[in-house]
Amino acid sequence: MNGAESLMRTLIAGGVEVCFTNPGTSEMHMVAALDRVPEMRCFLGLFEGVVTGAADGYARMAGKPACTLLHLGPGLANGVANLHNASRAQVPIINIIGDHGTYHLQYDAPLTSDIEGIARPISKWLRTSRAASEVGRDAVDAMIAARTPPGQIATLIVAADAAWSDGGVIGAIPAFPRAPLPASAAVERAATMLRSGAKTVLLLAGDALFGAGLVAAGRVAVATNAKLLAPYPFTRIERGAGRTTVERVPYIFGQAAELLKEFRQIILVGARIPFSYFAHPDKKASPVPDGCEIHALASAGEDLAGALESLVAALAAGSIQPLAERAERPGLPVGTITALGVGNAIGALLPENAIVVDESMTSGRNMMTATRGCPPHDFLANTGGSIGIAMPLAVGAAVACRDRRVLCLSADGSGMYTAQALWTMARAGLNVTTVIFANREYGVLKREYASLGLGDLGPRARDLFEIGRPDLDWISLAKGMGVPGTRPGSMEEFGKALREGLGSDGPRLIEVAL
Amino acid sequence: MNGAESLMRTLIAGGVEVCFTNPGTSEMHMVAALDRVPEMRCFLGLFEGVVTGAADGYARMAGKPACTLLHLGPGLANGVANLHNASRAQVPIINIIGDHGTYHLQYDAPLTSDIEGIARPISKWLRTSRAASEVGRDAVDAMIAARTPPGQIATLIVAADAAWSDGGVIGAIPAFPRAPLPASAAVERAATMLRSGAKTVLLLAGDALFGAGLVAAGRVAVATNAKLLAPYPFTRIERGAGRTTVERVPYIFGQAAELLKEFRQIILVGARIPFSYFAHPDKKASPVPDGCEIHALASAGEDLAGALESLVAALAAGSIQPLAERAERPGLPVGTITALGVGNAIGALLPENAIVVDESMTSGRNMMTATRGCPPHDFLANTGGSIGIAMPLAVGAAVACRDRRVLCLSADGSGMYTAQALWTMARAGLNVTTVIFANREYGVLKREYASLGLGDLGPRARDLFEIGRPDLDWISLAKGMGVPGTRPGSMEEFGKALREGLGSDGPRLIEVAL
Repeated sequence: MNGAESLMRTLIAGGVEVCFTNPGTSEMHMVAALDRVPEMRCFLGLFEGVVTGAADGYARMAGKPACTLLHLGPGLANGVANLHNASRAQVPIINIIGDHGTYHLQYDAPLTSDIEGIARPISKWLRTSRAASEVGRDAVDAMIAARTPPGQIATLIVAADAAWSDGGVIGAIPAFPRAPLPASAAVERAATMLRSGAKTVLLLAGDALFGAGLVAAGRVAVATNAKLLAPYPFTRIERGAGRTTVERVPYIFGQAAELLKEFRQIILVGARIPFSYFAHPDKKASPVPDGCEIHALASAGEDLAGALESLVAALAAGSIQPLAERAERPGLPVGTITALGVGNAIGALLPENAIVVDESMTSGRNMMTATRGCPPHDFLANTGGSIGIAMPLAVGAAVACRDRRVLCLSADGSGMYTAQALWTMARAGLNVTTVIFANREYGVLKREYASLGLGDLGPRARDLFEIGRPDLDWISLAKGMGVPGTRPGSMEEFGKALREGLGSDGPRLIEVAL
Repeated sequence: MNGAESLMRTLIAGGVEVCFTNPGTSEMHMVAALDRVPEMRCFLGLFEGVVTGAADGYARMAGKPACTLLHLGPGLANGVANLHNASRAQVPIINIIGDHGTYHLQYDAPLTSDIEGIARPISKWLRTSRAASEVGRDAVDAMIAARTPPGQIATLIVAADAAWSDGGVIGAIPAFPRAPLPASAAVERAATMLRSGAKTVLLLAGDALFGAGLVAAGRVAVATNAKLLAPYPFTRIERGAGRTTVERVPYIFGQAAELLKEFRQIILVGARIPFSYFAHPDKKASPVPDGCEIHALASAGEDLAGALESLVAALAAGSIQPLAERAERPGLPVGTITALGVGNAIGALLPENAIVVDESMTSGRNMMTATRGCPPHDFLANTGGSIGIAMPLAVGAAVACRDRRVLCLSADGSGMYTAQALWTMARAGLNVTTVIFANREYGVLKREYASLGLGDLGPRARDLFEIGRPDLDWISLAKGMGVPGTRPGSMEEFGKALREGLGSDGPRLIEVAL
């Protein structure tokens, strides 16, 4: 068995069974190995930003890592922006990068680059396998690293001669690391704070936002009247009718400060203290009110659901019915298309068990409100602020959950970063309906420009913030990649298109011209 | 004057007058400064790979740097693959990256990343400006670094508070470094080798491939019967009727070895010894015959044209008429469309003074032969092997040379990496005609798979090397970005479309379905 085959068989043995890839010559023996290890399901992306974003979406929904297979330094570099987002999502991903043969590096051939240097900023674990006998063992170490809670990015570079040489050994799979419970003093302290009667926020992240963690948080909320919040850049929230609703801290500083101003205590559950995305001259960095007491019940990497259950026990709240959202949807809007109307239409029509991927940016501001009483669903957000995540994330979520419907909400500016994902949706027949909010501008930049006190936009700034002239035609773009699209002219037509999209197999695209 | 304005004014003072950009919030004050410094011409790309590839194309044709303006670590990361190509092209580029305010970094906001770490692998010079007073000086140092022969990538990270604070100082512009002549012994040695009568190659790179350097090389070729060759990944070749033709070392190892086998001496003029792009088990790394004597007349960074002129003097060949290609074009093909036919049609129709950007990959194998007797033109190639360079390079070349016609040849697989460049062509009204060779596969990977001795493609390998199912429809993709396109059904129709494309203002796209 060569090193490449030992790699694929080790990954399968460790439960890594999906490979998102765009391979090149230095990965040829790994591609050949894939033909001998059919258990690994493969998905081709036409650009590596699609590949890495898909691995993120897969990890968020599957709760375990996929691998990527990328071509040398440039292939990895193309995937770095969405790996940045994934590192902020704290999800497990295993990047496999083929390198030149070890003895070929001395010639500095055109594609030679500092792959470790490119990988380091986005990798918590990084290693190069230089011999076939090492590859299986290194794959095990990569899986251990990736699955170290809360989830990490591990990058394994495999030299071409390590892949093609005989002597590969399938690695023995150990028990993967489990998240430890926080110290009981941290739980006691949180319980004391909550019993004090001071107005308190539970700021939840990671797996405190779905499943058992969310149920426990919902019990704490009812028992103590604590407010449940999630950071603006959350990884995954389970929500909808019957679920405990967790509100999102707004992106806009003033709104976040307004929401938080009445609170005296914040208990962090895997989350960090909120800070504004960007510094603004003469403005505070955090919307948290001065003097607010902050306590970490549990940090990222600890057992957040377990910590919340311990807190429930400390509060003797185990028999309390968790906070549950009422089933309630907005009415289906009619008439002229607006961004808010689209949010309400989605609220009116979102099917049960849907996965919503939201990078609607400035256009989707009512999205979470409009959908809070929908049938239970999951919501995925941009975690790292690097735009171009939505469609790749939707690919990965759809691969992880083939029986669920994925609704992908993208702004036009961010959508143009990784629109190649539409082709992967078509090739793989993924049930993703993508809604493009085509406002023909980088709306967030106009807002930030004003917020920085820069006054009216000059013609140059306008030129750089507006992406019309020519207008992007998303129906044509989608058609070019094999995805049927439509541009509804009214809210009624939007509702019809959304119903059709979410009701039919394979991908669809709806361009909302704003 | 704030730091941002001092930056833009310093760049203008230093002759940097084009900015390719996709800015974000951390670059807002630099965008605002652009509205006060109208001398800087700005071009928006909808993805940073377009931005950096355009800066490369601009530098190749303008012979001086443009700047890029990129958003934080992820924006830079998106441009790294084409910066890898640019670093291999040895062209000058100045990357400007906005970072968070210095005092905001401590909060590790979502977009915080190790920008220097991301920049290091592709930057020969790297610095972060942390105070307004430093920005102008740092811009000068960046320009000096970028313009250090043969041309380098300089990356200047500007903290948001350095950009927005008062105290900016326009930097004083020094004389930029000039390439030194090689030692006279190197010239003498080359002359002696050439006089020996042994069969000799002059392997040319950089500015030995156009202008005065090429004229001198053409004299040496006539005087000594030396063969003029360029590495496969060349930056820019001036060629056509009346010019000295420089043949390209083939990509395929066997063909390169065949071409070189009769030569006993290789004189390097800014070039490096050729090596195969990838290691192959049990194959040699270099196509250079064993025992071939290799001598560097001049290395990259030395004055290549001057070195060749010194060699001409040493050979007393100054009055010799340089080797000149005959004016001769292929006939215009008729009938069924083939890749070779397209090459010949381009040879038949290429207008004088055109710039050809070639990333046609496996489909364009006769391109340089078919065009060698065309009216004088420039040819630009992929220098670093990272695919997705053609359309961005064409954008930059067209911006540098608004009075010339640009013919952009792209494979479909590579084209999908940075197709967003089409939109920039439309927005800026660039005279670029893009020909897409749509063979619906990564043909080079099929060829490499076979060449590595991996036998017949398995179904998995086939799935990862073929990019049909669904077929990409480039006419729709181009329409989606405001570029008129056509898919000719015969060679006659291709000829008509090419003539129309090269004869009309603004961008056009021709999809060649193979």
